[in-house]
Amino acid sequence: MDAISVIRTKRDRGELSDAQIDWVIDAYTRGEVADEQMSALAMAILLNGMQPREISRWTDAMIRSGVRMDFSSLPLPTSDKHSTGGVGDKITLPLAPLVAACGAAVPQLSGRGLGHTGGTLDKLESIPGWRALLSNEEMMDVLRSSGAVICAAGDGLAPADKKLYALRDVTGTVEAIPLIASSIMSKKIAEGTGALVLDVKVGSGAFMKNLDDARELARTMVGLGTTAGVNTVALLTDMSTPLGLTAGNALEVRESVEVLAGGGPADVVELTLALAREMLAAAGVHGKDPADALRDGSAMDHWRRMIAAQGGDVDAALPVAREQHVIPAPASGVLTRLDAYAVGVCAWRLGAGRARKEDPVQAGAGVEMHAKPGDTVVAGQPLLTLHTDTPERFEYAIEALAGAVEVSPAGTAFTPNPIVLDRIA
Amino acid sequence: MDAISVIRTKRDRGELSDAQIDWVIDAYTRGEVADEQMSALAMAILLNGMQPREISRWTDAMIRSGVRMDFSSLPLPTSDKHSTGGVGDKITLPLAPLVAACGAAVPQLSGRGLGHTGGTLDKLESIPGWRALLSNEEMMDVLRSSGAVICAAGDGLAPADKKLYALRDVTGTVEAIPLIASSIMSKKIAEGTGALVLDVKVGSGAFMKNLDDARELARTMVGLGTTAGVNTVALLTDMSTPLGLTAGNALEVRESVEVLAGGGPADVVELTLALAREMLAAAGVHGKDPADALRDGSAMDHWRRMIAAQGGDVDAALPVAREQHVIPAPASGVLTRLDAYAVGVCAWRLGAGRARKEDPVQAGAGVEMHAKPGDTVVAGQPLLTLHTDTPERFEYAIEALAGAVEVSPAGTAFTPNPIVLDRIA
Repeated sequence: MDAISVIRTKRDRGELSDAQIDWVIDAYTRGEVADEQMSALAMAILLNGMQPREISRWTDAMIRSGVRMDFSSLPLPTSDKHSTGGVGDKITLPLAPLVAACGAAVPQLSGRGLGHTGGTLDKLESIPGWRALLSNEEMMDVLRSSGAVICAAGDGLAPADKKLYALRDVTGTVEAIPLIASSIMSKKIAEGTGALVLDVKVGSGAFMKNLDDARELARTMVGLGTTAGVNTVALLTDMSTPLGLTAGNALEVRESVEVLAGGGPADVVELTLALAREMLAAAGVHGKDPADALRDGSAMDHWRRMIAAQGGDVDAALPVAREQHVIPAPASGVLTRLDAYAVGVCAWRLGAGRARKEDPVQAGAGVEMHAKPGDTVVAGQPLLTLHTDTPERFEYAIEALAGAVEVSPAGTAFTPNPIVLDRIA
Repeated sequence: MDAISVIRTKRDRGELSDAQIDWVIDAYTRGEVADEQMSALAMAILLNGMQPREISRWTDAMIRSGVRMDFSSLPLPTSDKHSTGGVGDKITLPLAPLVAACGAAVPQLSGRGLGHTGGTLDKLESIPGWRALLSNEEMMDVLRSSGAVICAAGDGLAPADKKLYALRDVTGTVEAIPLIASSIMSKKIAEGTGALVLDVKVGSGAFMKNLDDARELARTMVGLGTTAGVNTVALLTDMSTPLGLTAGNALEVRESVEVLAGGGPADVVELTLALAREMLAAAGVHGKDPADALRDGSAMDHWRRMIAAQGGDVDAALPVAREQHVIPAPASGVLTRLDAYAVGVCAWRLGAGRARKEDPVQAGAGVEMHAKPGDTVVAGQPLLTLHTDTPERFEYAIEALAGAVEVSPAGTAFTPNPIVLDRIA
């Protein structure tokens, strides 16, 4: 077996054999297949595609490159969620304790933000004292005591994926559905959850810009999960405009706590409940309605226990950025566009995100929105408030908003996109 | 400008701009673009192709990565030949002094063999004392004194191509017509020849297995040469069976000297004369017929002067391998197949070629053929003689010949392929 023959097979539109896939993933993890060989193979996969059997074997091989976690000692069924990433997507924060409050355990291994989409761990780290890095024992303890845990994935989980993801990032080979699907699912299957709900984002602020690509990605991932014995469902959800009214770390924690307190923006509440119902159904847990758990305070109780168990001070004030800048509505009428990608890039430039893995993020930075598409606005009223500790960034951040906002004459008929666009099971 | 945006352009079937091409070739030569980025780009080029403007700019950028040679101080017009490589292809050896004898200067920068095709420098190094490495001044001296020089290309010539070629070799991205054409032509244009004849081989022993691919490669290279001001012509020639009756270093030198002495196998003589006529016409040199220069000894005179000027002892005996093994004809009848690729691999395994750049070659190793397709053979007569210094290689070398030889019943109608299949100007 050698790298060139594997590359040639895919280059010439052939199917990779199981033996070829097993060998190339293992040899790449060990450093026997070089980066320049794997990137040529990744480009051939991106351009020539993979059959379902190949994607499934590729995912398996990445899982076998590391350890698998096991939650079978827990008294509750496990259910997890993965979002493909969007702007203002803080859903994991209220969702994990909410599902725990309804009777399923939620072992949520999360990541940090890169580029214009935020990272769950970055958001939670704006809570004073909260720790993302837990040992396996600590993780199980938090899960037992509060029903949910949100923490960083250990290095032992799918190391082949870790290496390949970093390579794809610098070689223009990120946007391949077989590689995206196998990357996500290898981590989620290795994590050992019993049920999984995928939130596949569609729109300007998402990886997948159109519904057809998002459907193909969702179907591929649901197929991989089901084959691996994980009860998997996908919702396709709108990411043409940001979720909720905030994009930024502490700003999103504040909004998440509002949702857990029974309030919060309607779209965030709607998507949180839709995903909670799917996670509970996929885990076979029936009985409690998640909407009740938001109303009766039990979701908030689980949140407080979960945050405190990871060292977070739930009563401490959240960090606030040193400087604010208000962007007024440019005209009176109906807000007909507030572009997710532009708002994401603006928040990122304000300091909420990072350009490189090793960069720090600002806890208080981000964008606060005072209206959403469909709302009536009056010229000059505050439309967005930008937050940062480094006001020299305002100008560059505001540039990202060019063309992002559209106000149409009063009375213009406008129906916002539904949050949930499709469901794939 | 960054590598990922260049890769994405080609990945998404776009055209690379002149600025993108200039930047990526320069940045790769300097090490700013990493190998894993260039290999992803090479795979995207292989699968999505390039427009003539892109190939031309890519070639230019590789030329500009190094030095250009200049033969304008010579009193004679210059003419060069490049073969895309085949089995038994010793044509450069008699051709260069033959064309010099007819009045054009031949500055032939050549390479070493890799894989199943032999290398001109390896062949000449079987002549005791002969040196491939010359300084620029030595090269000009040999060219002035003997009208032709065959030597190694210096490191300064198209260094981007050198680096890219080594990368393509290990990443399954050799077989891309835009990359093959730009690789060959960047070196030949940088070399500074006024006229160029391309011998594009077609058949089992060649890179290009079919006539359509060979035509596309030839047209691309002729276009590149013409645009760069080099008078360029291509012949498409048959490589389904080896050229002549020998494949191996000293064996091929011996056959080349036979041709220069007015004898030699008909196919070698025919192709040598065809290429000589093209090289002279492309250089605008008229008057002497190359066939006369073989008959009257003037080509041999130029050969002796050229070899001697590079330290070679023209009267010394050529090395002979220590062991021989004869393969008899398996049946009586007409030889209807003697496969070029199989004979090339057999000679390579006997020690005539190398698996890696740093391997040595055996001067005496190779395959001697006693019949060619179309000849009548008698069962048991010697068909091939294998030569090697390392007889433990016989078994492995003989395995390469499985299916390579076909003898059909006497009287079977069989017309060998013509040597020259097409001409592109």
